Amino acid sequence: MTLLRTHVGSALRAARTAQKRTLRDVAGDARVSLGYLSEVERGQKEASSELLNAICLALGTSLAEILGHVTREVMAHESVTLTVVDAA
Amino acid sequence: MTLLRTHVGSALRAARTAQKRTLRDVAGDARVSLGYLSEVERGQKEASSELLNAICLALGTSLAEILGHVTREVMAHESVTLTVVDAA
Repeated sequence: MTLLRTHVGSALRAARTAQKRTLRDVAGDARVSLGYLSEVERGQKEASSELLNAICLALGTSLAEILGHVTREVMAHESVTLTVVDAA
Repeated sequence: MTLLRTHVGSALRAARTAQKRTLRDVAGDARVSLGYLSEVERGQKEASSELLNAICLALGTSLAEILGHVTREVMAHESVTLTVVDAA
């Protein structure tokens, strides 16, 4: 099952690593704890909408930009699932 | 500030009303309480990723479809905000 938080976490991690920044750095700028950001990136915790905005801001990106990535990933994941179901 | 849960709620409500279905009907199919669905639709509660999937399934839509709407709305909202900031 595709979980929104998994894809949101991946998109946030991809944005951070593309900037070669550490969890500590981004968590500090976003004023969230390092543990919280780490759990969000690994899809283990749902980010609240407010903290998601703070993390996007800390990454110098927009919510729309992150959501664009997430939508494409979820779409790709859902078509793979459909293909597997069709083939079964 | 644009909040993800506000746009997710609007997209879910739009999908439900387009089908002329009641909160009770969709909440029943998704196995969530009517109060929970109502709060999610009004952007007052963050839907967990699992329950968001259940609501999408109950609406006969996909997470990707809902996210597509949400992304477009957030994008439109963010450009309005930027325009206002530019004009200030």
